[in-house]
Amino acid sequence: MTEPESVAARYFASLDGRDWEALRRLLAEDVVYEMPQTRERIVGRERFVRFNQEYPGAWRLTTRRVVTEGRHAAAWVESRTGDQRQDACVWLDFDESGSIVQIVDFWPEAYEPPPGREHLVERF
Amino acid sequence: MTEPESVAARYFASLDGRDWEALRRLLAEDVVYEMPQTRERIVGRERFVRFNQEYPGAWRLTTRRVVTEGRHAAAWVESRTGDQRQDACVWLDFDESGSIVQIVDFWPEAYEPPPGREHLVERF
Repeated sequence: MTEPESVAARYFASLDGRDWEALRRLLAEDVVYEMPQTRERIVGRERFVRFNQEYPGAWRLTTRRVVTEGRHAAAWVESRTGDQRQDACVWLDFDESGSIVQIVDFWPEAYEPPPGREHLVERF
Repeated sequence: MTEPESVAARYFASLDGRDWEALRRLLAEDVVYEMPQTRERIVGRERFVRFNQEYPGAWRLTTRRVVTEGRHAAAWVESRTGDQRQDACVWLDFDESGSIVQIVDFWPEAYEPPPGREHLVERF
């Protein structure tokens, strides 16, 4: 496991396990967290840890896919809260010491497909 | 540029340019395309090309980030239709010949943030 792969794996494990000390150790002090869907940004390790501490719900995370290249990683994560399931796509950047300096989260929500493509599509 | 990086770049360029022949050349005949948000699946190259040919709107695509590792790639793509902007997160798998055998698309939509985290967050 390369260093960014290991850091990415520990990042999701620390969030899943609510291990805030482990999470802090992976983050640069000036880490920037962005959610483009809501145009929200959190700057700094302590604010980001607090955001997660305060985030409601007994969510559990499972990584479906992690792709790592150089100082970049992309992860497809499944979050479950009770019987509710939600995918996330997460983009991580690492600094030269291997700490996470940027996180971009997307939380795509389920919706019903528009009409007109039933001749090409099956549902699962 | 490694082969999967090149294929990923040409995939988005062919979609952006509506170059259906170029797109066909990148796809395995039994390619599977999935959109987990709508639980829709398209099986087979010709159906997938037709889906794109029929997709409404004069969309243009720009890749914001592509991360490639072995036979997997992840891409953060920006789609613009007129003055409307929409991000996509795309997961590509390649077969041993370098053809694309699986595509998973997420299209996360903009929404207003829930209340309660204003003390941690700035808007952009």
